[in-house]
Amino acid sequence: MPTSPLVSIIMGSTSDYEVMRKAAEFLDSMEIPFELNALSAHRTPELVAKYAHEAEARGVRVIIAGAGGAAHLPGVIAASTPLPVLGVPIKSSNSIEGFDSILSILQMPSGIPVATMAVDGAQNAAIFACQILAIAYPEIHAKVVAHKAKLAEKVAKANQELAEKEFKFRVK
Amino acid sequence: MPTSPLVSIIMGSTSDYEVMRKAAEFLDSMEIPFELNALSAHRTPELVAKYAHEAEARGVRVIIAGAGGAAHLPGVIAASTPLPVLGVPIKSSNSIEGFDSILSILQMPSGIPVATMAVDGAQNAAIFACQILAIAYPEIHAKVVAHKAKLAEKVAKANQELAEKEFKFRVK
Amino acid sequence: MPTSPLVSIIMGSTSDYEVMRKAAEFLDSMEIPFELNALSAHRTPELVAKYAHEAEARGVRVIIAGAGGAAHLPGVIAASTPLPVLGVPIKSSNSIEGFDSILSILQMPSGIPVATMAVDGAQNAAIFACQILAIAYPEIHAKVVAHKAKLAEKVAKANQELAEKEFKFRVK
Amino acid sequence: MPTSPLVSIIMGSTSDYEVMRKAAEFLDSMEIPFELNALSAHRTPELVAKYAHEAEARGVRVIIAGAGGAAHLPGVIAASTPLPVLGVPIKSSNSIEGFDSILSILQMPSGIPVATMAVDGAQNAAIFACQILAIAYPEIHAKVVAHKAKLAEKVAKANQELAEKEFKFRVK
Amino acid sequence: MPTSPLVSIIMGSTSDYEVMRKAAEFLDSMEIPFELNALSAHRTPELVAKYAHEAEARGVRVIIAGAGGAAHLPGVIAASTPLPVLGVPIKSSNSIEGFDSILSILQMPSGIPVATMAVDGAQNAAIFACQILAIAYPEIHAKVVAHKAKLAEKVAKANQELAEKEFKFRVK
Amino acid sequence: MPTSPLVSIIMGSTSDYEVMRKAAEFLDSMEIPFELNALSAHRTPELVAKYAHEAEARGVRVIIAGAGGAAHLPGVIAASTPLPVLGVPIKSSNSIEGFDSILSILQMPSGIPVATMAVDGAQNAAIFACQILAIAYPEIHAKVVAHKAKLAEKVAKANQELAEKEFKFRVK
Amino acid sequence: MPTSPLVSIIMGSTSDYEVMRKAAEFLDSMEIPFELNALSAHRTPELVAKYAHEAEARGVRVIIAGAGGAAHLPGVIAASTPLPVLGVPIKSSNSIEGFDSILSILQMPSGIPVATMAVDGAQNAAIFACQILAIAYPEIHAKVVAHKAKLAEKVAKANQELAEKEFKFRVK
Amino acid sequence: MPTSPLVSIIMGSTSDYEVMRKAAEFLDSMEIPFELNALSAHRTPELVAKYAHEAEARGVRVIIAGAGGAAHLPGVIAASTPLPVLGVPIKSSNSIEGFDSILSILQMPSGIPVATMAVDGAQNAAIFACQILAIAYPEIHAKVVAHKAKLAEKVAKANQELAEKEFKFRVK
Repeated sequence: MPTSPLVSIIMGSTSDYEVMRKAAEFLDSMEIPFELNALSAHRTPELVAKYAHEAEARGVRVIIAGAGGAAHLPGVIAASTPLPVLGVPIKSSNSIEGFDSILSILQMPSGIPVATMAVDGAQNAAIFACQILAIAYPEIHAKVVAHKAKLAEKVAKANQELAEKEFKFRVK
Repeated sequence: MPTSPLVSIIMGSTSDYEVMRKAAEFLDSMEIPFELNALSAHRTPELVAKYAHEAEARGVRVIIAGAGGAAHLPGVIAASTPLPVLGVPIKSSNSIEGFDSILSILQMPSGIPVATMAVDGAQNAAIFACQILAIAYPEIHAKVVAHKAKLAEKVAKANQELAEKEFKFRVK
Repeated sequence: MPTSPLVSIIMGSTSDYEVMRKAAEFLDSMEIPFELNALSAHRTPELVAKYAHEAEARGVRVIIAGAGGAAHLPGVIAASTPLPVLGVPIKSSNSIEGFDSILSILQMPSGIPVATMAVDGAQNAAIFACQILAIAYPEIHAKVVAHKAKLAEKVAKANQELAEKEFKFRVK
Repeated sequence: MPTSPLVSIIMGSTSDYEVMRKAAEFLDSMEIPFELNALSAHRTPELVAKYAHEAEARGVRVIIAGAGGAAHLPGVIAASTPLPVLGVPIKSSNSIEGFDSILSILQMPSGIPVATMAVDGAQNAAIFACQILAIAYPEIHAKVVAHKAKLAEKVAKANQELAEKEFKFRVK
Repeated sequence: MPTSPLVSIIMGSTSDYEVMRKAAEFLDSMEIPFELNALSAHRTPELVAKYAHEAEARGVRVIIAGAGGAAHLPGVIAASTPLPVLGVPIKSSNSIEGFDSILSILQMPSGIPVATMAVDGAQNAAIFACQILAIAYPEIHAKVVAHKAKLAEKVAKANQELAEKEFKFRVK
Repeated sequence: MPTSPLVSIIMGSTSDYEVMRKAAEFLDSMEIPFELNALSAHRTPELVAKYAHEAEARGVRVIIAGAGGAAHLPGVIAASTPLPVLGVPIKSSNSIEGFDSILSILQMPSGIPVATMAVDGAQNAAIFACQILAIAYPEIHAKVVAHKAKLAEKVAKANQELAEKEFKFRVK
Repeated sequence: MPTSPLVSIIMGSTSDYEVMRKAAEFLDSMEIPFELNALSAHRTPELVAKYAHEAEARGVRVIIAGAGGAAHLPGVIAASTPLPVLGVPIKSSNSIEGFDSILSILQMPSGIPVATMAVDGAQNAAIFACQILAIAYPEIHAKVVAHKAKLAEKVAKANQELAEKEFKFRVK
Repeated sequence: MPTSPLVSIIMGSTSDYEVMRKAAEFLDSMEIPFELNALSAHRTPELVAKYAHEAEARGVRVIIAGAGGAAHLPGVIAASTPLPVLGVPIKSSNSIEGFDSILSILQMPSGIPVATMAVDGAQNAAIFACQILAIAYPEIHAKVVAHKAKLAEKVAKANQELAEKEFKFRVK
């Protein structure tokens, strides 16, 4: 596995960090090298274009872009790179229940897809990035499979927790 | 009336318990034997399928399934059992005003219905389960009728409460 | 199995018939005796109340009520009967994408549930009615199980249809 | 002007009182005799029908009905009285941003109108009731005109308040 | 009953006529004298203000105003008259499923109510106008009651129509 | 007045032409020199950036940008020019009732405004462009005032048209 | 540059001040003379009309109007002035997620545009006003360009902030 | 490049074929081997689980799943495979403007992502699948880059088309 960043996490502003750090934390736990930057499609359009054009040459294989409101960042990046771009709609305080962020990311025109995650779904974006990388990196594939197996354990724990709830007519 | 569980309450995660316990409490108050479990359509798909296939043989007659977001649990269970499935859309912190939960449960395709309750309507699901069971169990029928009669009393109490509000031009 | 109607189908106006007849056709195919009526919660409130009060005594075990717009019919019937009521939201020409019909039926208050089906989901309502009746009538239970099995056949047929689509790089 | 109640305020439950009392307070301030009751379309359907049928005979000339969720109360009352019914959609904790309440009240079928107010617009309902009564009662007409005149004063006050805000480049 | 117009129907543009003529037809059938005009809140603001100010002096007792899109006409009229204003949201080709028209009419601020009807509900607006006038004109009251009675007949006719639908397992 | 283009009309694809030509036609009728181009924010991001950067130097004073779906074009242009950008949301066949287009254009972040017009409101964009230009060009100001005056004539014509509608109880 | 107000900020009520003051603060920072007033389209319609008619003569070149709910103020002003009007939809406590405010301002009919900003986007309205004024006032143009340049600095600062976040597998 | 299928296209029913065939056509044009099947999450849950479990072993590297209404298919498949799953929301005749399909696919819970495409965006799903495969297959990477370059040509053609539109004041 390379030491150059395989995944690049980018967000529109640092106010999105509380959501987006979950992507960073997941990649860290999976030991995948990644970048983490803030770039605004509207305030620094040239930096965004330059960043998108050069990402692949730096070794990046998947881009995770989070944004809120009229969330143009993921689409603008997708326009300037052949890499797969995962979009994370962010439900900021000014957004309209997240609908603006979702639709601005999801409804991309024919030819330039952005793969959209659930509202505030930064961790899922990181998981999906790993699923993509797993195609080329067997060690990441093994980690993806192991992580999936662990999810079932949570449910076992949940049932244990529920087992303690006492009701007279509950049949255990 | 049997001692095996007539109703099975299932939820996607324990974070749904605060909503779903109202179903358990109602069944308890009606003295209907029930099960209570957490199973995720996405994290433990095989357990859900097994659970759905075996529920009827355990004596279950109605299933109440609560879930939020892309709420697949009720539909996935309905796919694997001939029992009637009642779906409770849950308005979790990440949901979009509950619209995602409602539509994911309600809009089932032709052939596999899920009977959808109001957002967070776990108690109503339990009442509806009793209305179904009342067809086969006369003692449950009697309880349903009695419960319905009690609802009117609440309104009488409400009017008593309102009666104390003093306005100069109110005519009592 | 009785010859009195086990299911009662009711609609707000005959303009709803094109949707609601799918419920009648399904019950017919399952050989379940049923009633079929038009009654308006707003134009004939007393008839609706009388109908709801007397349905159970006539042998009815499940009520299917379809309505559009401010769709009060299912809820108004549920208020006056202990029988389970299945609501079918109808997307009429004046409705707002069916949202008015869905929300008017779904969002019933605590105590008086209406089990809501998908928009225009009259057939699913009939299937669900059979799933309810199956608890008390073994011959209906057998039919529900047989119907469910047939659904899988449709998918086999669909795959056969798709098998004919020729693409150069399709692997069959 | 009569001493019998000219306006009847009705709400689905006492949890609606915080909103609906604004209607009562306005009528009080206008010295219009009124009634105030809680009646549920779903829990006490017969009382609602009886109430609606008898309101006119008691002297009531306008009915104000507030409800949330699947808000059937205004429509159910309108079905059983020739009196004009004003509906107040209430944004309760379980409602979906008030959309369910609005659409359940607004989208009445042809023949049975309910005049819908803004979400939580109980005071406006009371004002509108006075505008209706003004047709028959000249003293109420005078009060409506006087109240309307007072609204402009608020704006004068608002401007005074704004006048105190200091900005360097503000031109006053 | 006066020969001066009791009701004034006003619409934003003649493209709204197909909807609004149902109000005129209903008033005609009830033999209520009325006016019919097109005035735009945005294109002829002064005419609208003048019209609103003078309507009462001409004998008008209720105003019905229909508009689509950013439907300001009903609210702008309500701002300049003490008469009750009924708003009809119109679902024009450019509107967003009627949501823009509904919300622009419904969500009036405290102090200036507009009573909103269902989307395209011009006939209901005319019926509601008659219900208001009935307070002062006994002959209109009689007509309102008679009209309401006739609505039930439609349902009888609907049931006759449904009676002809033949199903093998239908119980009549 | 210059002969270089004062207004630049830009659209995401030629499928938007049927809507956007109304802007061109209005500017033509007002004798304002303008440009008309198709450029995609996603398919030709570099051309869009170049276009936005150079527009002002070419003499352009206002940009009108129309787009549908995840409508990034207006925002992306606004990011690279100090000129005022007017956005026209287009309700294309794949859009979600125009909501995606509206929110993608409207909800721009702090610092980079786009002035949003009604759905498919290309003519209004052209009118607004003239209102802006009127600040610097007295002859355009005169045309704006004259155009506004003509709008009132339409209403006069509309009333003439309505005057021909015959109703028995209509008072003219 | 004149000392008479170039921009006029108007709001429907002082409860909108917390949002609208951001427009005032921005204009102050740009040293643009402006007015600040509260006027209600519904409570003081005549003052609004008078204000709109006289604004241009006072030297005003752009109007910024903020309102919530059935937000008629921007449209009503636009009806009575040839000046460009910028509308700011306000998400007040009674509004429906801001959808009512947005649609009431955005969906203006053909002929009378209002340029709509993001929800609560008062600062963006002030920036846009400056972009308009820049056409006629070179010193404002210079300030607009300088302000745009400063936006990029924020992003540099944001990246510095992010640079401090430590992750084991982050590549800097 | 292998001859086993790299991409698997799956749809809920053959009524989705008109949308989904665009994915097949794109893969065909790119000469990527693929599968094409119809499987219903609700009618054939066991086949779907078996299909999902075995896809990877057959050589599949990306799954494209299209579904409408309560669109559970993509999520149910994602639950049983470590492969990346791309979801295509389909706007069927019974769907609610595509909102049900979008939200049922998008709002997946933490741990099990589905990458969602625009409504009816089957071609974009195929493009995205190629962008993923490009990580491991250099010849696919070359095709992705070439395809992206061709998109810009469309815009050139669009401008040629627009160049023919004649306006008197258009500056070319």
